Amino acid sequence: MRAPSLDRRLLETVFRAAGPAPVRVVLGDRVWFTPRGVSAQFTIRVRDRATLLALVRDPEIGFGDAYADGRIVVEGDLVQFLEAAYHTWPDDGNRRWMARAISRWFELWQNNSLRGSKRNIQHHYDLGNDFYSLWLDRQMIYTCAYFSSPEMTLEDAQIAKMDHVCRKLRLQPEESVVEAGCGWGALALHMARNYGARVKAFNISREQIEFARRRARDEGLNGRVEFIEDDYRNIHGRFDAFVSVGMLEHVGRTHYEAFGDVIHRAIGNSGRGLLHFIGRSRPDHFSRWIRKRIFPGAHAPSLGESMRVLERHAYDVLDVENLRLHYARTCSEWLARFEKAGEPIAARYGEWFRRAWRLYLAGSVAGFSADSLQLFQVLFAGPRARPPAWTRDHLYTSRDLEWARQSTTS
Amino acid sequence: MRAPSLDRRLLETVFRAAGPAPVRVVLGDRVWFTPRGVSAQFTIRVRDRATLLALVRDPEIGFGDAYADGRIVVEGDLVQFLEAAYHTWPDDGNRRWMARAISRWFELWQNNSLRGSKRNIQHHYDLGNDFYSLWLDRQMIYTCAYFSSPEMTLEDAQIAKMDHVCRKLRLQPEESVVEAGCGWGALALHMARNYGARVKAFNISREQIEFARRRARDEGLNGRVEFIEDDYRNIHGRFDAFVSVGMLEHVGRTHYEAFGDVIHRAIGNSGRGLLHFIGRSRPDHFSRWIRKRIFPGAHAPSLGESMRVLERHAYDVLDVENLRLHYARTCSEWLARFEKAGEPIAARYGEWFRRAWRLYLAGSVAGFSADSLQLFQVLFAGPRARPPAWTRDHLYTSRDLEWARQSTTS
Repeated sequence: MRAPSLDRRLLETVFRAAGPAPVRVVLGDRVWFTPRGVSAQFTIRVRDRATLLALVRDPEIGFGDAYADGRIVVEGDLVQFLEAAYHTWPDDGNRRWMARAISRWFELWQNNSLRGSKRNIQHHYDLGNDFYSLWLDRQMIYTCAYFSSPEMTLEDAQIAKMDHVCRKLRLQPEESVVEAGCGWGALALHMARNYGARVKAFNISREQIEFARRRARDEGLNGRVEFIEDDYRNIHGRFDAFVSVGMLEHVGRTHYEAFGDVIHRAIGNSGRGLLHFIGRSRPDHFSRWIRKRIFPGAHAPSLGESMRVLERHAYDVLDVENLRLHYARTCSEWLARFEKAGEPIAARYGEWFRRAWRLYLAGSVAGFSADSLQLFQVLFAGPRARPPAWTRDHLYTSRDLEWARQSTTS
Repeated sequence: MRAPSLDRRLLETVFRAAGPAPVRVVLGDRVWFTPRGVSAQFTIRVRDRATLLALVRDPEIGFGDAYADGRIVVEGDLVQFLEAAYHTWPDDGNRRWMARAISRWFELWQNNSLRGSKRNIQHHYDLGNDFYSLWLDRQMIYTCAYFSSPEMTLEDAQIAKMDHVCRKLRLQPEESVVEAGCGWGALALHMARNYGARVKAFNISREQIEFARRRARDEGLNGRVEFIEDDYRNIHGRFDAFVSVGMLEHVGRTHYEAFGDVIHRAIGNSGRGLLHFIGRSRPDHFSRWIRKRIFPGAHAPSLGESMRVLERHAYDVLDVENLRLHYARTCSEWLARFEKAGEPIAARYGEWFRRAWRLYLAGSVAGFSADSLQLFQVLFAGPRARPPAWTRDHLYTSRDLEWARQSTTS
């Protein structure tokens, strides 16, 4: 049956905004619409006209909230649907002045001052260690893993990531490291345990810090690793290396220069460091739905924007690696584990929460695999640091040499 | 003997501007000066008070011109002297408003319009193939080499550089490549000969293009490589890959967006490319002496500045490698060969030219080893390109595996 003219026009408006995605939309149980000249690969069920109107008014928030409410149901694979939508989403779709203005207002509202950051971080990270332990790896690492070979498990890929970071930094025994934003402490403990480093790790999420301190005590590493419940802006002391994995996203664009000052206070002109963060291929905002419901105050900078942190004190950028595909894979592993734990999660946090987080994780997979999200690892050194590695061989050879020796001797 | 008070005050002013370098300055043959609290490692002989006054008026141009004229003589190793000077040069020494204003005026004067670029490029690159063949490698490659092992010769390191570029691009047989600024054609020929690519290579230096065409004919590669005497802005056609080695320096900051448009016209959203260029650790200008006497119109961007080329069309930055030390080594090899050919060079181009180029090459070594000069290789891909390499292993493993096999079997 054809859609009556009002509903039909509403649907056309939605597709005009979202691009000619290969999607059949079914409104209620009687009307449907597919953009002209496109063969539908997905079906979306929209409960009622009010939901449709919300989509027309504000596609970003409208879709996310309706999906979380169960007023929109996607039939078929959610990740593939979002990837298809990203491919047809018009290039400048969310760069119109109105969208830009609202986005900017959001940014000011969710400000990353000392107090604002605390509120923003607690919103996400203090959901409870129990929750995250249901779907993260054993070590509770909530950042992009490094699958140095494609068949690796998530657990191993997280260890490979930590080694990749430490090798890039060429960490030596007894060197001092400061970590800004340490999550549940896995990297700080890894650097101390496996590389003999002395680490001070900062985080403003109390739940995470307490978890990390328990681990340090249990492993007998509390003499080498100190977990400090404080904002990165209060980092004090002098260190050989600075590391921050998955924290720049929470710094906020207006604080990049100040972040550069914090780094310079910590390592001066002779230290080195590594920033690992979600970025973009051009300056843009996270979807407003993500910022409203999931990550208040978050911003993923373009590589150009992020350079404001490092160029302020003329740090040499030695190496930038883009691990975009590795983050798509990481999020895909998280999503599978999250779905497996769906029943207990829904029982404890409700169906709304379960659907909202499913959309967030699926959207992240699609964002890294098919849209403009990037994962940058930036290695840098001060203008008076010891000379950098001559080549990047050392990141790859030792493992490969072992493999080659095994394959020649066997 | 102590300097008389006027000369002494002039010397003090020079040192105040240049920082407390470990240098003893001898004026004429009777007065000398060393900054307080510093032990002199170098001696500079300044011929007369007029030269000293020129140094006070404008240290950058004053030193370069006086050195080239022979009115200033540096005793001892010139590179080491310049490295020491860079270490003590005050951080914001050439960022005062007056210096900035003059620098900016220079930039406008040496504009990189179609006509301005032709004039700027001819100034440097049309000095004659005979001249460059006296001190470049056999293949006439006038960009940073890649010493994949430290004991490599310059000739081998230039070949390793071309392979490094082709491997990063994962070049396949029959793929089409456009090269913007091809020098004497070595890379274009290498891609065609060793990787089976079809290449169009652009350059506005007539001497270089004619040399490159002869090589293509001699090697029977003129069916696969076309050398075009034209500006990069006139690139037409569609290609799988875009490559530019040592050309962005001549594009000029005000043309970065237009350069991004040229790239997008050439490879669209599905191609990939590589930019290899001299950069800086923060936005700044080349010394005015370099821009006046050696490289008119040149600008080395910070990584952040260079991103204006790629973010305009939302290219994914996949990999940035800093080959700073490799360029210091390359320039050092060039300087040694240049000095060896010093007699014929002075006989043909004069003593002024010989000293000016010695200073330029020695300053480049010091700039890459001890100052803020960087060499960035930036690999990028369009938002609809085939997926990038999963890791960077492929840049390192094949060679290393061979090496490991040899060392286990021998």
